[in-house]
Amino acid sequence: MANPRELELSEDAMRSLVDEATRRIFEHLASLPTQPANGAPEPRALEALARSVIEPLPEHGEDANELLDRLFELVPKSFNTAGPGYLAYIPGGGLFHAAVADLIADAVNRYVGVWAAAPALSQIETTVGRWLADMIGFPKAAHGLLTTGGSMANLVALVTARRNLLPDDFLSARIYASDQVHHSVTKAAVLAGFPRSACVAIPTDADFAMRLPALAAAIDADRREGRTPFCVVASAGTTNTGAIDPLDSIADVAARERLWMHVDAAYGGFFLLTDDGKRRMRGIERADSVTLDPHKAMFLPYGNGALVVRDRETLRRAHSVAAEYLPDMQGDPELVDPCEVSPELSRDFRGLRLWLPLKMHGASVFRAALKEKLSLARLAADGVRRLAHVTMVAEPQLSVLAFRLDLPGLDNAANDARTKDWLAKINGRQRVMLTPTTLRGRFVIRICVLSFRTHEDRIAMALEDIEATHREVVGSS
Amino acid sequence: MANPRELELSEDAMRSLVDEATRRIFEHLASLPTQPANGAPEPRALEALARSVIEPLPEHGEDANELLDRLFELVPKSFNTAGPGYLAYIPGGGLFHAAVADLIADAVNRYVGVWAAAPALSQIETTVGRWLADMIGFPKAAHGLLTTGGSMANLVALVTARRNLLPDDFLSARIYASDQVHHSVTKAAVLAGFPRSACVAIPTDADFAMRLPALAAAIDADRREGRTPFCVVASAGTTNTGAIDPLDSIADVAARERLWMHVDAAYGGFFLLTDDGKRRMRGIERADSVTLDPHKAMFLPYGNGALVVRDRETLRRAHSVAAEYLPDMQGDPELVDPCEVSPELSRDFRGLRLWLPLKMHGASVFRAALKEKLSLARLAADGVRRLAHVTMVAEPQLSVLAFRLDLPGLDNAANDARTKDWLAKINGRQRVMLTPTTLRGRFVIRICVLSFRTHEDRIAMALEDIEATHREVVGSS
Repeated sequence: MANPRELELSEDAMRSLVDEATRRIFEHLASLPTQPANGAPEPRALEALARSVIEPLPEHGEDANELLDRLFELVPKSFNTAGPGYLAYIPGGGLFHAAVADLIADAVNRYVGVWAAAPALSQIETTVGRWLADMIGFPKAAHGLLTTGGSMANLVALVTARRNLLPDDFLSARIYASDQVHHSVTKAAVLAGFPRSACVAIPTDADFAMRLPALAAAIDADRREGRTPFCVVASAGTTNTGAIDPLDSIADVAARERLWMHVDAAYGGFFLLTDDGKRRMRGIERADSVTLDPHKAMFLPYGNGALVVRDRETLRRAHSVAAEYLPDMQGDPELVDPCEVSPELSRDFRGLRLWLPLKMHGASVFRAALKEKLSLARLAADGVRRLAHVTMVAEPQLSVLAFRLDLPGLDNAANDARTKDWLAKINGRQRVMLTPTTLRGRFVIRICVLSFRTHEDRIAMALEDIEATHREVVGSS
Repeated sequence: MANPRELELSEDAMRSLVDEATRRIFEHLASLPTQPANGAPEPRALEALARSVIEPLPEHGEDANELLDRLFELVPKSFNTAGPGYLAYIPGGGLFHAAVADLIADAVNRYVGVWAAAPALSQIETTVGRWLADMIGFPKAAHGLLTTGGSMANLVALVTARRNLLPDDFLSARIYASDQVHHSVTKAAVLAGFPRSACVAIPTDADFAMRLPALAAAIDADRREGRTPFCVVASAGTTNTGAIDPLDSIADVAARERLWMHVDAAYGGFFLLTDDGKRRMRGIERADSVTLDPHKAMFLPYGNGALVVRDRETLRRAHSVAAEYLPDMQGDPELVDPCEVSPELSRDFRGLRLWLPLKMHGASVFRAALKEKLSLARLAADGVRRLAHVTMVAEPQLSVLAFRLDLPGLDNAANDARTKDWLAKINGRQRVMLTPTTLRGRFVIRICVLSFRTHEDRIAMALEDIEATHREVVGSS
């Protein structure tokens, strides 16, 4: 008969497990710059490897070191999301401090869902949320709710807006967002109970920012037809091109039309730490709620999003439910019960992941890192712009740029194919990983500079590879 | 000007941070048995301590060791949720292996939201989910989605049920659950867009299990009045008393009435690993979806819930949304893209927390631990039952029991007050922490045995304290 006391590892066993894990982690991290930028360039070629982990629930245990060996064989067979060459999608981070924060939070396993259960620890989360609110410029009544990512933050935002502004029957409600909005907003709307038709896509201008007259016209048309305009979602840094909607003007419309204004700043929001970002996102402080992703531009490991609301009471009205077995809630504006303002009850102590790195370095280091990303994106754009037959589809507003080939004498389809070929050749060199998107029907290549590990040397490598492959692709035309 | 390269710690700095953290963790864990069972017995007395962490976003960094010292001063000033004496609410776990899993997952920071981005790692999550599905007895088409906890799992369940069974206009839909259901189900319903009146509370029997005739009557009444019965939520281990609804009979009703059957087995589900649990939860394998909380009876740190569905396609229909910037989805029944079957996109690699401990020990050790909890609860009940003037309000069906004082000559209010006094005296001894609830208007004391650190010696201490304080309270009557 198995011994249940095995689950409590001895101090020696714990120490050995940590040592064996960190040894492999350090080796792995040291090799990141020389690992391929994409460890899974042809994912289906890894199908057998993936299937090798399919097995029934094991009845008996295995040696920990062998398990770690196996795991660290699997890890590099994936997009090198933590490496300096990851300029794809929106890069994640992976600050080691945050990993240690999770180690501590998990091992001590205190409960932060209710203030009374861990007053000081739950206050750390409220404080971290406050930092985010201050960064946005929100008033004292604001609250920063930590989620697992931007999708959950957008979902909580729409649910909160709905529960504060709409009656039980909200079938006629309309939500406006640009045609560049992240799909998690549309997804959030249907999960929150809205019909798919509730989301109205507003066309964008040459910079991929929401066209205000189109927004006003859509609202007018809906009012005329008896529908209920209720929410506008602005983007502060779209995934496709990093475009920032005209936040201040959208705030005017929202005020005039009494709409909830949500800003999806999952990617762009932390650039508010820089003067440039603050200037470009003017008006964000007038929103009712803002999504931020610390696992993007705060460089944390995946698993940290945030919804910051202007007025904590809107979260409370949406989420507070009483139960006879719960401890007393505080009802104090500063001593917040996280479960009262969130869809979650028991959950990880995820605030520590933000607290430890920010306390260890201070905002100054993060600000410097974000300024570096802005200037690296401009550097990349300068390099790309010099190339023949290249159209800069999106200049960097923050740290994303997008471009494509437009060779004379070729139609759009042929140029799309040539651009696709170019991208494959760039990525084939495995020093950087770039990803494509489709903009107004055209295939484009994106660069997003956001990893804390990406510095000037890697952008130089990116430009070398971009230029060399450009010669191959354009030369062969 | 701050140096952005500071964010990449040197190997020495990483090693030192881990060493300093683990030294404090090991010391802390070793002291758990002798720490007070409740480090925050009067939460508001800790208000000054909590307020001491309120500060503006720091511009500059602080010494890491001083920060760790500060943190480890704060940690014990909370419910000792990780200690052996925590018999309150539903205890969490805190397996150290899971903490190491998070350390690894965070540090390597690969992306598991999309299969193609990390085929083998995302497959680990699918495999872990498969283990949960097998435990329930679900067919091959089932899928286990990992969430952050039971509240999110219940929310995803209701959204999935709604999007599979109901039209855009679902205002007339009705959801049935017992009057003992966890409040997260009602909360999930309103977050998912249902009016508060959509949730119908079905009365329970002497064992706090759903009364079937009352369920049938409620459905009939709703149909007669033109409402739309659509979902029944059964509990497999209520929070109040660990009661298990008659799952097999509820499955009959659900089949006959074409309702979605969801089982909230957040607390009880893992007892399916034991013969006793399997017998008591017969019929759970007929559900459409089941909530499980690995951070409860799998002893993981807070942050792991799961929603297991009978048919993965129901999750996909509810959650799949296309986007031009995402990699290709697999559309293969075994190679699952987590983001297609979940509200989340970027998020932590939380499957590793389950995989590592289960692979290191095998199910046998967890089964043995769960059997131990069942027998410890019976042991506690035997001790309590012997005491004079004690009413066993709920015998342990799994590992929860509830009791109160019923002294002759005292009315209910006086007995409630005396029971409350008794609880305060038990907890005052600080070797165990018990929590109360209200059952049919009466104040009762609960014991929930679920920590992997609770063994027979601690139940003996609990009974000593319960008996000694019983003499004080009853003797003074």
